[in-house]
Amino acid sequence: MSLPLSTGQTLYQQLADSFAESIHQGTLKPGKRLPAIRRVAQSHQVSINTVLNAWQILEDRGLIEARPQSGYYVRTVLPAVTRPVQKLRAKEDDPSAQKLELIEQVFAAQNNPDYTNISLACPQDSELFPAARLSRITASLLRRDPDLIGRYVLPPGSKRLREEIARRSLHVGINLTVDDITLTHGCMEALQLALRAVTKPGDCVGLESPTYFFLFPLLASLGLKALEIPTDPQQGLSLDALEMLLQEQRIQALIAMPGAQNPLGYVMPLANKKRLAKLVNTYHLPLIEDGLYDELQFDWPLSPPVKAFDSEGWVIYCTSFTKTVAPDFRVGWTAAGRFHEKIARLKAVSSMSESRLLSEVLAEFLASGGYDHHLRTLRRRYAANLDAARGIIARHFPQGTRATLPRGGFVFWVELPGKVDTVEMFQRLLQEQICLTPGALYSLSERYTHALRLSCCYPFDARYTWALERTGALACELSGLPPGQDQGVPLRPQVV
Amino acid sequence: MSLPLSTGQTLYQQLADSFAESIHQGTLKPGKRLPAIRRVAQSHQVSINTVLNAWQILEDRGLIEARPQSGYYVRTVLPAVTRPVQKLRAKEDDPSAQKLELIEQVFAAQNNPDYTNISLACPQDSELFPAARLSRITASLLRRDPDLIGRYVLPPGSKRLREEIARRSLHVGINLTVDDITLTHGCMEALQLALRAVTKPGDCVGLESPTYFFLFPLLASLGLKALEIPTDPQQGLSLDALEMLLQEQRIQALIAMPGAQNPLGYVMPLANKKRLAKLVNTYHLPLIEDGLYDELQFDWPLSPPVKAFDSEGWVIYCTSFTKTVAPDFRVGWTAAGRFHEKIARLKAVSSMSESRLLSEVLAEFLASGGYDHHLRTLRRRYAANLDAARGIIARHFPQGTRATLPRGGFVFWVELPGKVDTVEMFQRLLQEQICLTPGALYSLSERYTHALRLSCCYPFDARYTWALERTGALACELSGLPPGQDQGVPLRPQVV
Repeated sequence: MSLPLSTGQTLYQQLADSFAESIHQGTLKPGKRLPAIRRVAQSHQVSINTVLNAWQILEDRGLIEARPQSGYYVRTVLPAVTRPVQKLRAKEDDPSAQKLELIEQVFAAQNNPDYTNISLACPQDSELFPAARLSRITASLLRRDPDLIGRYVLPPGSKRLREEIARRSLHVGINLTVDDITLTHGCMEALQLALRAVTKPGDCVGLESPTYFFLFPLLASLGLKALEIPTDPQQGLSLDALEMLLQEQRIQALIAMPGAQNPLGYVMPLANKKRLAKLVNTYHLPLIEDGLYDELQFDWPLSPPVKAFDSEGWVIYCTSFTKTVAPDFRVGWTAAGRFHEKIARLKAVSSMSESRLLSEVLAEFLASGGYDHHLRTLRRRYAANLDAARGIIARHFPQGTRATLPRGGFVFWVELPGKVDTVEMFQRLLQEQICLTPGALYSLSERYTHALRLSCCYPFDARYTWALERTGALACELSGLPPGQDQGVPLRPQVV
Repeated sequence: MSLPLSTGQTLYQQLADSFAESIHQGTLKPGKRLPAIRRVAQSHQVSINTVLNAWQILEDRGLIEARPQSGYYVRTVLPAVTRPVQKLRAKEDDPSAQKLELIEQVFAAQNNPDYTNISLACPQDSELFPAARLSRITASLLRRDPDLIGRYVLPPGSKRLREEIARRSLHVGINLTVDDITLTHGCMEALQLALRAVTKPGDCVGLESPTYFFLFPLLASLGLKALEIPTDPQQGLSLDALEMLLQEQRIQALIAMPGAQNPLGYVMPLANKKRLAKLVNTYHLPLIEDGLYDELQFDWPLSPPVKAFDSEGWVIYCTSFTKTVAPDFRVGWTAAGRFHEKIARLKAVSSMSESRLLSEVLAEFLASGGYDHHLRTLRRRYAANLDAARGIIARHFPQGTRATLPRGGFVFWVELPGKVDTVEMFQRLLQEQICLTPGALYSLSERYTHALRLSCCYPFDARYTWALERTGALACELSGLPPGQDQGVPLRPQVV
């Protein structure tokens, strides 16, 4: 948007066009004063006369007006037609770029408050989060020590938060110390750093199938290939398939979510977790264990993560507080075993450290003892929401629809009968301002074109249930099948 | 720290050792209750009897005690000898790993409040930051809308902050709109994403010499080579040298800091900035312009960045608010020209988005009009600090010492006469709890072994001046030269 060095236009026309665009785009809002002429001349390296000429053009176009002894102001203008969601140029040969295009459409809809989201894993039911409590802690910390935000925070960041994380780790069997933990910018950065620490471009990474959709563009951005491993909706990742891949040395790392998987919702049985730990330690395969939903498992006490059985440090445990404490506090962490030092250094050169304010608010919340109570509330609510959502699906989705029965978290997986294309459903429902995530996002293959993921982290109100029912009605229309007959009866634990 | 799957030890001995380590490391603090026996049995997958046996061992060792009807508690124990700063295994053939080792020693000293830092660029003079004002804004935003922290924030993040950034950009001649800006986790992440967007492993990146020390390990972490380009302490990057490199196609990207460079403090003359813009646009070279100190230039009005003359979008402008508004609010941004879409996507898959709370607090601060006043205060204070520091150097450092005369920011560069090795000075001063950054950090070559960078972003108090004087005395001792004779007279603008 800076002034081109050479075009056919005169300099003042260019300057006028540049400010006209700022007005149309809303950077300069109606009623706002324009920057002083002398300042514009200096900052844009033109003469005072050039600015005056440009202002004259803008005045003639009705975009600005002079007010005596005060300067130039932006007039009330019709807002420009907003840019349509950019049609992204997916490369034909890059399926992950096509996924990204679809993901961006989903995000754009999610960011629009007019849309009803029934699919993304972005907790928005603010009743479910201790917002008031965290606000009080924030205010109180800042009152006690306003300098908290006036000091620069260097790696490894807040010791207090790492202490609280270490203390809690004792309860799930992984006995960490502060020096085992690296704070990250959410779980996403933890996964990214872990991948960069254990792979090089061209390497192949094993994934569950279906898996968290952002992993595909993440792998592509690092020049990594994805290998999707069969995954049972109750037992999890096929360990037999994994062992075969290990024997054939076909993967250089593995990402899995054995505790409350996204999108299936399963919790891997303990015996499988132990076998998985043994496999990766025997074959020296880095396992990136995504524990984002571990504390949202419905069964109590919690099933320990694979990391708890990690004898030689090959498991890189990654998680964050965005799904459990405060969606806006993007503080995550990793306990990276033998890769700890490497990841801590990568973190420092990649994005330095985490805000001390946010870290200490989290630490105070964890220390104050209300966390376990809060988690119990979340689990109960999500379990109830999931039951209710599965009930609606049983009544309103086509006969033959199957759905997973999650053991934690707030997402589940639905497979539709017949030849329904859920990308088409997604596009059609967008027009009704309903946003869902089609199954195609969860694999690079065409395996899940008839599937979709649903999420129960939104207020379970009339709008949400309407959107779910409307989705079911469209699925019936597209499949030509009548809705399910289990009127009023929740779907049995039929799993895909 | 998890239980090994098979060793000679019995299971309860292993469990006892694991908890003993947690006690020694301070994860379990004296007076704290141990987790309930049943819970430990479950989480560590052992029997109740195994836990009881382990507790017996810990009791025998005097580490824990039983309290009737209450459980087991950690006894007051001698704290373990803290781990010494880990000696890092620098690979002999990787100079950036050796730099990183040195940087980590510097950071460790910085994180220790007993040390006096005269070198790092980590603003710590909390009087200089609007901490109280930001606290009030934070508290007020949370009061008005506690749900702010209960909602998940998706890319591209806070529109309000991007609007404020766009509005301010009009004043420095780069006329951005909200859609040109990507929010990042500080400037460091902006640089990292920019590099990942425009290079591939094996590429070579041009750098100023001397340059910001963290760039060397950052480049190494991405498999990139560094090429250091001669840089004049007043004119900046040699554009003749750059043009030659461009003709020979020897670099695939360039990082430069034309406005108030770290560590030299120069501001590139405007004519050079224009030539630089023209060069990178002509040769299609991505220029990563680090504008971290741009708003801390001492001359008013500010000299516009190279980005202002970027006709074809080859300049990726990166900056943040950590040096100007709140060191702890790690929110930065980039305006990436033709690379905007690529970087926005990389940001999303690398670490998702920035906290809305921190973003909106910054936006409110920028909108409320006190920012320019605050910047003037900062500039005046840093300029005065720099003058005073140069005065101390003139009186206490060896005759023949030379120092740059910064035109912005708060760091400057000192070159000592004779054969003084500043890494040796650094090591010796660490023993006196004074922390400085030796010149060796700022290049992969051995060019600056007699140089050091100093920083004036700390309270300019007796402790700071003592540390500076002590540094000068040691330099005199090591060089065998007497202190300067300019008693009381600030160093003339002698530049290296």
